Amino acid sequence: MSTIQDVARHAGVSISTVSNVLNGRTDRMGAETLARVQAAVAALNYRPSRAAQQLKTGHNPMLGLLVPSIANPMYGFIAREVEAVAQQQHGHRVMLGNTYRDKDVETGFFDDLLSHGVRGVIMISSQLDEQHFEQAQQRGLVVVSYDRRATPGAAPAIDHVTVDNLAAAQLATAHLIAHGHQRLAFATASGQTMSRREKVKGFQAAAQAAGLAGSAQVVEGRMQDGYGDSQMADLGRMLAARIAADPQRPTGIVAVNDLMAFGLLAGLRDAGLVVPRDVSVVGIDGLFLSALMNPGLTTVRLPVPDMARTLVDRVIARLADPGIAPAEFIFQPDLVERESVAAPARSARKQA
Amino acid sequence: MSTIQDVARHAGVSISTVSNVLNGRTDRMGAETLARVQAAVAALNYRPSRAAQQLKTGHNPMLGLLVPSIANPMYGFIAREVEAVAQQQHGHRVMLGNTYRDKDVETGFFDDLLSHGVRGVIMISSQLDEQHFEQAQQRGLVVVSYDRRATPGAAPAIDHVTVDNLAAAQLATAHLIAHGHQRLAFATASGQTMSRREKVKGFQAAAQAAGLAGSAQVVEGRMQDGYGDSQMADLGRMLAARIAADPQRPTGIVAVNDLMAFGLLAGLRDAGLVVPRDVSVVGIDGLFLSALMNPGLTTVRLPVPDMARTLVDRVIARLADPGIAPAEFIFQPDLVERESVAAPARSARKQA
Repeated sequence: MSTIQDVARHAGVSISTVSNVLNGRTDRMGAETLARVQAAVAALNYRPSRAAQQLKTGHNPMLGLLVPSIANPMYGFIAREVEAVAQQQHGHRVMLGNTYRDKDVETGFFDDLLSHGVRGVIMISSQLDEQHFEQAQQRGLVVVSYDRRATPGAAPAIDHVTVDNLAAAQLATAHLIAHGHQRLAFATASGQTMSRREKVKGFQAAAQAAGLAGSAQVVEGRMQDGYGDSQMADLGRMLAARIAADPQRPTGIVAVNDLMAFGLLAGLRDAGLVVPRDVSVVGIDGLFLSALMNPGLTTVRLPVPDMARTLVDRVIARLADPGIAPAEFIFQPDLVERESVAAPARSARKQA
Repeated sequence: MSTIQDVARHAGVSISTVSNVLNGRTDRMGAETLARVQAAVAALNYRPSRAAQQLKTGHNPMLGLLVPSIANPMYGFIAREVEAVAQQQHGHRVMLGNTYRDKDVETGFFDDLLSHGVRGVIMISSQLDEQHFEQAQQRGLVVVSYDRRATPGAAPAIDHVTVDNLAAAQLATAHLIAHGHQRLAFATASGQTMSRREKVKGFQAAAQAAGLAGSAQVVEGRMQDGYGDSQMADLGRMLAARIAADPQRPTGIVAVNDLMAFGLLAGLRDAGLVVPRDVSVVGIDGLFLSALMNPGLTTVRLPVPDMARTLVDRVIARLADPGIAPAEFIFQPDLVERESVAAPARSARKQA
């Protein structure tokens, strides 16, 4: 690869003259000199090194993107949108990391971002405790957090971009209630994240508003073998077996996310139950895969492209102007109706 | 962030003494001096800048990973494995890009990798023409290509890591034949990649070996709206409608990959056909999602963790020793039997 020295030698000018051309300082430069430098840059196919630029400007045209696991199709969807906006709109590349929702792994990634000169990071995490995000910001990172609200009662130290998770679960639950369901369940993983906690609240609020608080239960279990791809669906399958064995089982289930719902559909089928004849199921996410389930999964869809654009735009804006105050950006979801919800069987309604 | 100058000042030594400590050149250093530098590094929480290291060594402890689209669950699966091995085994971070199988986008990414000082790149692409990979390697990148064989008849210029795609399609086709299927189809996207071409060959070879070449057809269509997440499944759904309308329709279908198979299952259902009673379907990939389909999808599984490890190990090894000759690494798939294959109905067998 050619260096700025090569360009200067080829053009017969000083290195600082080449640097002036590369940085647009050509007002007082002779036209002939300018042309000679430009020709040398072209002839040698010279590209300024990002490393040299970075030493000068202190940062790298790159963003960090940390996800629990990129093998989870929801995070793959978000990551593709984030990468497209960062690269096409802002000329920034993306450094990707999987953190498995582990705080120590997240913190280790912050160290590496700083030592690579990367100063902006998008955290897909939804940890209850965000102190390590705030510490990272104090160390010079611009942090934007996805999938949780700011901690109530304190001025937000970092940006938050999220769907209204409470509203998402309310929407799913109200949809089941509108179809006549009175025995309801919310299926989730134990080990709270902020987004799961908000969804449980939304489920309970919707049940309460319909006078069904007494027959609305949270069914949860622990994911096995850490956090990855199939574990959430595996848990759904396991919870479905538990639900199916309950003589007073719910007739309508809200799943914490689409992968959990996929597992529930498979597990209910394993137990000989037919969706939606025996049990109705609603997911949350709106993965394209939900349309491919049998039956097609009714789900609450998140506006992923809009949220991804906001995530990237905020990091870039606050890198450019550190004086911008951190803020909260809350997006509203919508319901996509397919075939996994129907009115409960008459016998179920009588028993309720 | 503190600099090497700060550390030197804090320890009361020269910058070159600090540099000697950081680079392990401590043989002839007094124990007291060493301790003072180490204490200063700890007190100031000093991390050597990667940018400065990079200017010195000419490369960045980072690998490029280019995928057609990270929203495709198969590439998300591979990306997670690659990131884990790169980071945990080799201390390298991953720069991710989506290329939508577009040669110009791939080449633009090579430019950016070079200007970021990244010298190793894993290409998930399977383009028929790899000249731009070879050019990138001539410009100083170490390129490892996934999902295709080396071009026959030439010494390979880059590494290739792939499943034996021909064997994968043969395995799927032979499985249908072993169940008594005689009218066979291979469902794929038009617009060839090397991996799709190999799979078509494997399908045809297996049909020919069973004397069924005359009743084995390739059914293909063009993906709409570019390359992303749902397009392959959408195409499968569309091809299923075409297959269902054929009075002499095949009884056994091999899908080019699992996403295509998911679309076929949905499309056959749309057309009122029951899998596997009316039509059997086999996928290729072994996504965890294939276990969640209804019926569960029989599929040919790729050894993704083994392949990902080889991809990363090869890039790292060739970065360390450019004298290593490029090679081909071919992995064998295996069959995972679920519920999407059965013997054809008797009427179908009579007509064949």
